[in-house]
Amino acid sequence: MTKIGDSASMTKTFTDQDVRTFAEISGDKNPVHLDDEYAASTRFGKRLVHGILTSGMISALLGMQLPGPGSIYIQQTLNFQAPVYIGDTVTATVTVTKIRENKPIITLKTVCANQDGTVVIDGEAVLLAPA
Amino acid sequence: MTKIGDSASMTKTFTDQDVRTFAEISGDKNPVHLDDEYAASTRFGKRLVHGILTSGMISALLGMQLPGPGSIYIQQTLNFQAPVYIGDTVTATVTVTKIRENKPIITLKTVCANQDGTVVIDGEAVLLAPA
Repeated sequence: MTKIGDSASMTKTFTDQDVRTFAEISGDKNPVHLDDEYAASTRFGKRLVHGILTSGMISALLGMQLPGPGSIYIQQTLNFQAPVYIGDTVTATVTVTKIRENKPIITLKTVCANQDGTVVIDGEAVLLAPA
Repeated sequence: MTKIGDSASMTKTFTDQDVRTFAEISGDKNPVHLDDEYAASTRFGKRLVHGILTSGMISALLGMQLPGPGSIYIQQTLNFQAPVYIGDTVTATVTVTKIRENKPIITLKTVCANQDGTVVIDGEAVLLAPA
């Protein structure tokens, strides 16, 4: 039974190939993700992983671990706090913060942090948990 | 110069290959996306496109068209309103709703609708526009 404070995590290192593949399937070919020369001219200095690709880790945790298969995504907020560079290792963590009394609607805090512990994305997810 | 009411759209049909590829790069191998038999047992009856993959279209529009390259993603909210099935054709539309007076921070309404006009995702994006 899911309860407040339950938590799950996963860690992934984002490769150049991940970013190029996501650009193809999403259509997001923003040069900040794909073009070294362009990225070098930005405040970031090098190419970034798409924020929505990083957010896929949150979706993976929710859909596979907590609340897990059968849950239905209702809402996600994403606050992009810091850049994720190609080669960064990101740990995503989801933690149950609220469970509705009258129906299985669960709210989770969703945080992604890089290898230095810097929060790169935070936000909140709401799901209808499996029956 | 970006102004309130400016809008951009793109349309994409999601294939089985898109979903399988996103499952690999995000780690989200929830059987509702990958397993026909499992999906047939759910309220949806067939396999779904990942909500975050569909959301990639919004990111593509923001990063490539409006406000376009050089913009920095600050926040995205996603309300998942209806399922997207494999083979569905989704049109994403972003519309400028607010521009801060003192700095180039832009808010946009972000909507994805399927081939029947049903809204599948709505929400709001906030970006720092290119200088």
